[in-house]
Amino acid sequence: MTVSGNYACLPPVRILWINPVGFSAYDQPMADVIAQIKQPSTTVELVSLHTDTSPDNLEYRTFESTIIRETVELARYAAVNGFDGAVIGCFYDPALPDAREISGDTVVVAPCEASLRVAMRLSNHFSVIVGQKFWIEQMTARVREYGCEDRLASMRSIDCPVCQMQVDPPRTRKQIYEAARLAVEEDGAESIILGCTMEFGHFRELQEQLGVPVIDPVFAAFKDCEFAAGLKAAYGWKPSRVGSCVAPSEADLARFKIFQRPTPIGNRVLVPAA
Amino acid sequence: MTVSGNYACLPPVRILWINPVGFSAYDQPMADVIAQIKQPSTTVELVSLHTDTSPDNLEYRTFESTIIRETVELARYAAVNGFDGAVIGCFYDPALPDAREISGDTVVVAPCEASLRVAMRLSNHFSVIVGQKFWIEQMTARVREYGCEDRLASMRSIDCPVCQMQVDPPRTRKQIYEAARLAVEEDGAESIILGCTMEFGHFRELQEQLGVPVIDPVFAAFKDCEFAAGLKAAYGWKPSRVGSCVAPSEADLARFKIFQRPTPIGNRVLVPAA
Amino acid sequence: MTVSGNYACLPPVRILWINPVGFSAYDQPMADVIAQIKQPSTTVELVSLHTDTSPDNLEYRTFESTIIRETVELARYAAVNGFDGAVIGCFYDPALPDAREISGDTVVVAPCEASLRVAMRLSNHFSVIVGQKFWIEQMTARVREYGCEDRLASMRSIDCPVCQMQVDPPRTRKQIYEAARLAVEEDGAESIILGCTMEFGHFRELQEQLGVPVIDPVFAAFKDCEFAAGLKAAYGWKPSRVGSCVAPSEADLARFKIFQRPTPIGNRVLVPAA
Amino acid sequence: MTVSGNYACLPPVRILWINPVGFSAYDQPMADVIAQIKQPSTTVELVSLHTDTSPDNLEYRTFESTIIRETVELARYAAVNGFDGAVIGCFYDPALPDAREISGDTVVVAPCEASLRVAMRLSNHFSVIVGQKFWIEQMTARVREYGCEDRLASMRSIDCPVCQMQVDPPRTRKQIYEAARLAVEEDGAESIILGCTMEFGHFRELQEQLGVPVIDPVFAAFKDCEFAAGLKAAYGWKPSRVGSCVAPSEADLARFKIFQRPTPIGNRVLVPAA
Amino acid sequence: MTVSGNYACLPPVRILWINPVGFSAYDQPMADVIAQIKQPSTTVELVSLHTDTSPDNLEYRTFESTIIRETVELARYAAVNGFDGAVIGCFYDPALPDAREISGDTVVVAPCEASLRVAMRLSNHFSVIVGQKFWIEQMTARVREYGCEDRLASMRSIDCPVCQMQVDPPRTRKQIYEAARLAVEEDGAESIILGCTMEFGHFRELQEQLGVPVIDPVFAAFKDCEFAAGLKAAYGWKPSRVGSCVAPSEADLARFKIFQRPTPIGNRVLVPAA
Amino acid sequence: MTVSGNYACLPPVRILWINPVGFSAYDQPMADVIAQIKQPSTTVELVSLHTDTSPDNLEYRTFESTIIRETVELARYAAVNGFDGAVIGCFYDPALPDAREISGDTVVVAPCEASLRVAMRLSNHFSVIVGQKFWIEQMTARVREYGCEDRLASMRSIDCPVCQMQVDPPRTRKQIYEAARLAVEEDGAESIILGCTMEFGHFRELQEQLGVPVIDPVFAAFKDCEFAAGLKAAYGWKPSRVGSCVAPSEADLARFKIFQRPTPIGNRVLVPAA
Repeated sequence: MTVSGNYACLPPVRILWINPVGFSAYDQPMADVIAQIKQPSTTVELVSLHTDTSPDNLEYRTFESTIIRETVELARYAAVNGFDGAVIGCFYDPALPDAREISGDTVVVAPCEASLRVAMRLSNHFSVIVGQKFWIEQMTARVREYGCEDRLASMRSIDCPVCQMQVDPPRTRKQIYEAARLAVEEDGAESIILGCTMEFGHFRELQEQLGVPVIDPVFAAFKDCEFAAGLKAAYGWKPSRVGSCVAPSEADLARFKIFQRPTPIGNRVLVPAA
Repeated sequence: MTVSGNYACLPPVRILWINPVGFSAYDQPMADVIAQIKQPSTTVELVSLHTDTSPDNLEYRTFESTIIRETVELARYAAVNGFDGAVIGCFYDPALPDAREISGDTVVVAPCEASLRVAMRLSNHFSVIVGQKFWIEQMTARVREYGCEDRLASMRSIDCPVCQMQVDPPRTRKQIYEAARLAVEEDGAESIILGCTMEFGHFRELQEQLGVPVIDPVFAAFKDCEFAAGLKAAYGWKPSRVGSCVAPSEADLARFKIFQRPTPIGNRVLVPAA
Repeated sequence: MTVSGNYACLPPVRILWINPVGFSAYDQPMADVIAQIKQPSTTVELVSLHTDTSPDNLEYRTFESTIIRETVELARYAAVNGFDGAVIGCFYDPALPDAREISGDTVVVAPCEASLRVAMRLSNHFSVIVGQKFWIEQMTARVREYGCEDRLASMRSIDCPVCQMQVDPPRTRKQIYEAARLAVEEDGAESIILGCTMEFGHFRELQEQLGVPVIDPVFAAFKDCEFAAGLKAAYGWKPSRVGSCVAPSEADLARFKIFQRPTPIGNRVLVPAA
Repeated sequence: MTVSGNYACLPPVRILWINPVGFSAYDQPMADVIAQIKQPSTTVELVSLHTDTSPDNLEYRTFESTIIRETVELARYAAVNGFDGAVIGCFYDPALPDAREISGDTVVVAPCEASLRVAMRLSNHFSVIVGQKFWIEQMTARVREYGCEDRLASMRSIDCPVCQMQVDPPRTRKQIYEAARLAVEEDGAESIILGCTMEFGHFRELQEQLGVPVIDPVFAAFKDCEFAAGLKAAYGWKPSRVGSCVAPSEADLARFKIFQRPTPIGNRVLVPAA
Repeated sequence: MTVSGNYACLPPVRILWINPVGFSAYDQPMADVIAQIKQPSTTVELVSLHTDTSPDNLEYRTFESTIIRETVELARYAAVNGFDGAVIGCFYDPALPDAREISGDTVVVAPCEASLRVAMRLSNHFSVIVGQKFWIEQMTARVREYGCEDRLASMRSIDCPVCQMQVDPPRTRKQIYEAARLAVEEDGAESIILGCTMEFGHFRELQEQLGVPVIDPVFAAFKDCEFAAGLKAAYGWKPSRVGSCVAPSEADLARFKIFQRPTPIGNRVLVPAA
Repeated sequence: MTVSGNYACLPPVRILWINPVGFSAYDQPMADVIAQIKQPSTTVELVSLHTDTSPDNLEYRTFESTIIRETVELARYAAVNGFDGAVIGCFYDPALPDAREISGDTVVVAPCEASLRVAMRLSNHFSVIVGQKFWIEQMTARVREYGCEDRLASMRSIDCPVCQMQVDPPRTRKQIYEAARLAVEEDGAESIILGCTMEFGHFRELQEQLGVPVIDPVFAAFKDCEFAAGLKAAYGWKPSRVGSCVAPSEADLARFKIFQRPTPIGNRVLVPAA
């Protein structure tokens, strides 16, 4: 008995990591992290937006509104340039359904969704450590949308704006530890998700201290994307383009001059295949 | 016994109607409709976006992504210019939570939410008549978000893109009638919501033919906004600005150069108070 | 291009306000409030039940059960006498679906539903300040029925029975303030709904003290009704009478002698159009 | 090792069956059925309301509104006269939470809730056969309230008003059979609930024809009540009277003259213990 | 007018009580309890598993996994031997849907589901007193599955493993009392469910102390089963065997050698009919 | 600026694939498939149960009940032998939460959950093609448990028992195609999940024919496991062992003689690292 088909193991893939903010200081550190965690054969292009027209962070919906179009343009850029996968690098998962519509054959993922996937394999209930209390409403809505509300133990804030997160890393880590500890002890969390991509750099130490899985959304999102990109490349599991997944016609895009201005890339870091 | 306070009946209000598309042909007809339905004392400014940078319609998420920032800028415009209320004139209710964050004292409403409110007062179950089948997924998500999913009898499509809706009004009306009739007879609809602002001009005839309430989202949204604006002006019921409703600081807005480019108004029609 | 139809702005309407209790002491104060907040052209008839056969308040389901028939009879009275709208003036919204069935062309609204509508335009999460803890179960069920459970931050009690609410208004206001303050600070409320029509007379001061919208259910319900009545008068948006909204036949009503006893009006206050 | 307590098997109980309509023609037939299905030691009092002041049936909410107070008065009658259990004999379960509040130590049950309990022990999905299509909305709301919505395969109507149900029993049975057959074959029903107490007299034949459990709500409700009454008598499992289950004080009831008029019993049939 | 059929009152039934653990010390005490609470005509066979191959308790899913097959074999044993009903005597309700599939004409019930049924007749909100905190996740999932999540006030732990529950009964009772008191006072519980069959022997005293219904799951499950068995015997309300309730064919069972090893009964206590 | 830690790309992993049935004919073909799709560095051990004590398939809950303990024993075997990941190779995901409790540092995944994860990245709505109609109830419950119910377009059956699935592959493929086509055209499916591991061998052709992603659960589960195993090996993201994720003590396991009989491996195929 034989099985038809030729299913080589996951082939090399090209990933676009989008930092959907006009802030480039962390592009290189993040690229350095990604360089360490990617498959050797993976090629990564990490981009951020123009610093003079896009905000540093997306804590507010108002800020987020200024980068929706840019994020979609970058999804299109990924589609046109044959990227296998793209990551929208902010834990609010901004413009995720929009980017997915126009991404062609590129699989688009985002940190919140990807982190939930990891946490749900490893625990029954998880908590999310957010920067500021007012983020909780929007992030809870997202968790509900993703069908994971019953498994959310709590969201806890460290009262730290995004811009302060990497100023004094030991202090940030201590704050996260304290919030996470309470989540475990009082809220019934069995794993911890760091609810901001700028909380990167801490998960392993926290994990050891806390004794529960601590999910870094940068790691979760990048690896989820690399994995999904591999599935696409190997098995043709690319985005559906029927029903509510259909994209607008090229004629309409041209008529409305969408995707005709330069791709809004302010900074770019390349992480080549090994 | 006396009751404290001074509660004059709803005072004159100023409303901003946003057509969040780069298409101005229907601005005047819509303003004409609004002129007929507004309170005499109400002042209305109807705006649409620049025709050379914004799409004609928002059928796709990709199109919608190009007007999110503009819609938020117009909400800010409303806030800064002392409008009492603002309407985001598309049935997808694009950028509604974003616009609400930055609208200051201006109450922001949108057609889908406003139409549901009307329909739920008048019936136990309603159907929505959409232009194309692929809209249904996103609109159903919205209805679910608004907590009305249990009362949605069905969504039915007339297989008509937005750009065709006003080309042959009698034909459109007939299509809507047919879909609505099936919704009532087969799906248990007790009222009908027209699921696109471009379906305006038909509700009264349809209502007579069908024998059930037919909600025109332009009427519903405008009147809901005028009403909410009146409540705000009379009783101080303006948007909350605590918790998840807090807006970014002016300093941050300045730092990120948000709201520093010209307000994206491509066309403007004024409807003065009588 | 023209739009068909004749949509004059909202015409004068006639409203029936039902205090569904056998207690008339607050009819006149409430009428005085309504006189101050109604549109000049609006005519209002405020009625309460017979003091010798109906209870003072509806804190218990047992009390409520004694006024269901009367409330429906008053909805019928509204229908027969051509009222455009009717309000069932108790925050439990008693008999709302029943009254809506028989109200003919009269639109029926009630304070809880109307207050939620206002709060949801102005905030993401709201709390309700109830009189006694044991009310919470039934009111939460109502909020869930209306699809707003996800947005309910909390219900907090002031431990004050209805009959005490207007005895010492400054004390009541202080109690409400304290409960509302905790709702904002600890429960994440971004707006406050006063969960009893007898909490009237306080909202404006509380709103100033608390810095968040405070919704008085008398105001919310009356204005919502006046608004809905206007939509009905102007656009024909009257209750659906198909499917589950169909009313019993006149023959059946006659056969069962329903609506043949005198309308149960114990006290009546008229508020004429200006 | 010993176990403390004295737990005699279920003792004799007294049940009040309430036909909450002003129609007595079926009191005796129903009493005859109950006489055949009760435990020998059980005493039953079956009552209906006054024929000149109460409707024949409760198909409409308007009709139902006229018997809410009477049903609550009968729950009180059960409490005062030491009945162990009471049944509200209509599949809409009218006034169930209200009756439960005032029923003292009497356990109150109703046909819809009781039938669901039986069906859920015997099958994963059930359908309800209703008399008329417009009942479905209210009954579905009830099923949802009882937490059983996920297990409802469908509601199907036989297009037969209550007053016709017992006119031509073979014809009714045939209609039910047809609807139930479709429910099983097309909707995935694995058991059938007869959605009206007036559908009594058919279940056994239908059960044999259909090959699935067919739940007669008269049987289900009576036996559920007799059972619950026994649990109460034997183990003290009587209604809770704390929190939202607390009843109004006798002083308040007296002050509001509730329960001072004669108990609204129009017809009475006694089924003595054997 | 006559009603067709022969509906004798509930006939004698035979019940199988399954203690799905390899621990027989409590078989006789439980049988003694059951002897006191059963109908005189009821015959009961109480069985537990082999002590050398099955665990003492099911606190962990791992333990539970070792008794799933045995529980199903005992359901088959019940079917083959003509038992009218069977109880799976553990509050986790292990293997309930599995046992129901293969139980033939035997109605299978379990303590959690049965206790919820009792509590919901008597109160609006209930709490469950569990042995250890880590049980809560699985039990809450079960309560959700049964559609009762909205009525769950809380689960509270007494931090006592199953094996300690009957070591010092007065101490256990005191712990339960304390947890239940907090559930009533702080969580809004109006009735209490003892969340472990090994908490038997306390409910009556607790009920008197607490002043709210306290449901012993052994009593609730046994009586629910006896009741359901009676309904089956009298009215033919036996498990559905269509759709998802269909059982595998005897041919398949034989082919897979299922039910060919000896029934896994380690200990057996008979409680004869009086 | 530097980022702490050493995050080598995903290291070699060892995977245990469990065919939880006593049927070995497809072990080698499945191993052949896995050999083609695994990372070169991955080692795989594929096992099935003893053919004389375990059933061929798990179509019925009764069959499933006979392999729960065995599956848990294999999870333990994985833990003890240092496997990084384990797959429970049946689309019902049998014993998944149980296996996760005892799996130590091994990450356990299963085909239904893994396939949903893939489908949700690629589409808004998916359908599942099942073998027989009666599977749908249990699988839908699973999908609901995983929080994906709102995105399930439909389940459609090909009316083919598991044992027939590989008898005439072209015929099976045609049946799947037909069901999937209807799911896309009539139910709104945008991607297709093959709802049985025995539907392997078809996805690529179906995908081409249908023009939408077709998820083979063998591929999805294996790659998800290999991925999760890699995350565990690289970042320490192993199963949580606190709260409801805590495993029983070794002392208890020994006392109950759990895991003391030989591991129930009937057949074994090794797929070595390249």
